[in-house]
Amino acid sequence: MACMAAPLERLIEQLEKWPAIGHKSAQRLAFYLLGMNEKNAKDFVNAFCEAREKIHECSICCNLTDKETCPICDDQTRDRHTICVVADPRDVMAIERAREYHGLYHVLHGNLSPMDGVSPEQLRIKELVQRIADEDIEEVIMATNPTVDGEVTASYISKLLQPFEIKVTRLAYGIPVGGDLEYADDVTLRHSLEGRSKM
Amino acid sequence: MACMAAPLERLIEQLEKWPAIGHKSAQRLAFYLLGMNEKNAKDFVNAFCEAREKIHECSICCNLTDKETCPICDDQTRDRHTICVVADPRDVMAIERAREYHGLYHVLHGNLSPMDGVSPEQLRIKELVQRIADEDIEEVIMATNPTVDGEVTASYISKLLQPFEIKVTRLAYGIPVGGDLEYADDVTLRHSLEGRSKM
Repeated sequence: MACMAAPLERLIEQLEKWPAIGHKSAQRLAFYLLGMNEKNAKDFVNAFCEAREKIHECSICCNLTDKETCPICDDQTRDRHTICVVADPRDVMAIERAREYHGLYHVLHGNLSPMDGVSPEQLRIKELVQRIADEDIEEVIMATNPTVDGEVTASYISKLLQPFEIKVTRLAYGIPVGGDLEYADDVTLRHSLEGRSKM
Repeated sequence: MACMAAPLERLIEQLEKWPAIGHKSAQRLAFYLLGMNEKNAKDFVNAFCEAREKIHECSICCNLTDKETCPICDDQTRDRHTICVVADPRDVMAIERAREYHGLYHVLHGNLSPMDGVSPEQLRIKELVQRIADEDIEEVIMATNPTVDGEVTASYISKLLQPFEIKVTRLAYGIPVGGDLEYADDVTLRHSLEGRSKM
């Protein structure tokens, strides 16, 4: 728009590329960033650059860390015979929040997806297989998302691990706690009935 | 959380301060920013720093610009006898989008608000009065928001401009186009009836 200065327009264009940020949000954010005081602006740029510089993948589980290995892999009190396989570092955080699991993790950094052209070489599957060959692992829990891509990834890896003769399990499907039966989809309800347990 | 690296946590903390960005959105944005390629990251930091360096207020209308004066004040084809007074640079964009107004603007950079401690000295009111004293202005359109603060600001300025004996007008109130009468509030409907026009 002719009434907007070019540097401001460029900043809005940049922010529009961000996930879940539309044109209106990008505008609001740009004005906020312009109005920030000098210290806050510096703090933000520093945090941005520092995170990009220092954060990389843990050399064991491929979760994100600023050390050689991540705090979970370093924690000797955790069960070192179980690996929970997730697609994304955020899934590690979600499972940690549940405070139910005390084993190790392996982060794939994505799901297999022929549609989006994601092949096994692009995920940290090789690293997982290597760990199972090297470490004393008894169980691998497949905790990829309950989506088509997540299922494909879980079953691909579970086949790959067959030669090791270890237990490979999958997270239970069912109705979410606090959810409403009326709105549960057929497939979830079917899984929920199949997996019913004695009270 | 123990499973997250400190630099990542700091980046999330920074993003959480942004308007309308909650914890979950800040997390998602932080992971996106980490995963950006080097060129995109540089483009963003450059756009951010350039906008903050170069953007300042137009010396005439106080809208944001990277030049001494803004494109609207420079545009000699516009009606130079009318000033539309708005609270925010985004309001200039909104009115320009309507393509109905062809005069000049004046951006106050806020509304008077005793509640939030915003007094006349913090707004660009002095600059507006100076313009009306210096320039050949025939009409001032008060286009502050139809909120309590916007109303207070509009009536404060309109009183201030009385000595100049120019026309001071206010945007019309009424039902928004495409809106639903059923959901219109009483005050809007009352204004809409009062302001009815012949068909």
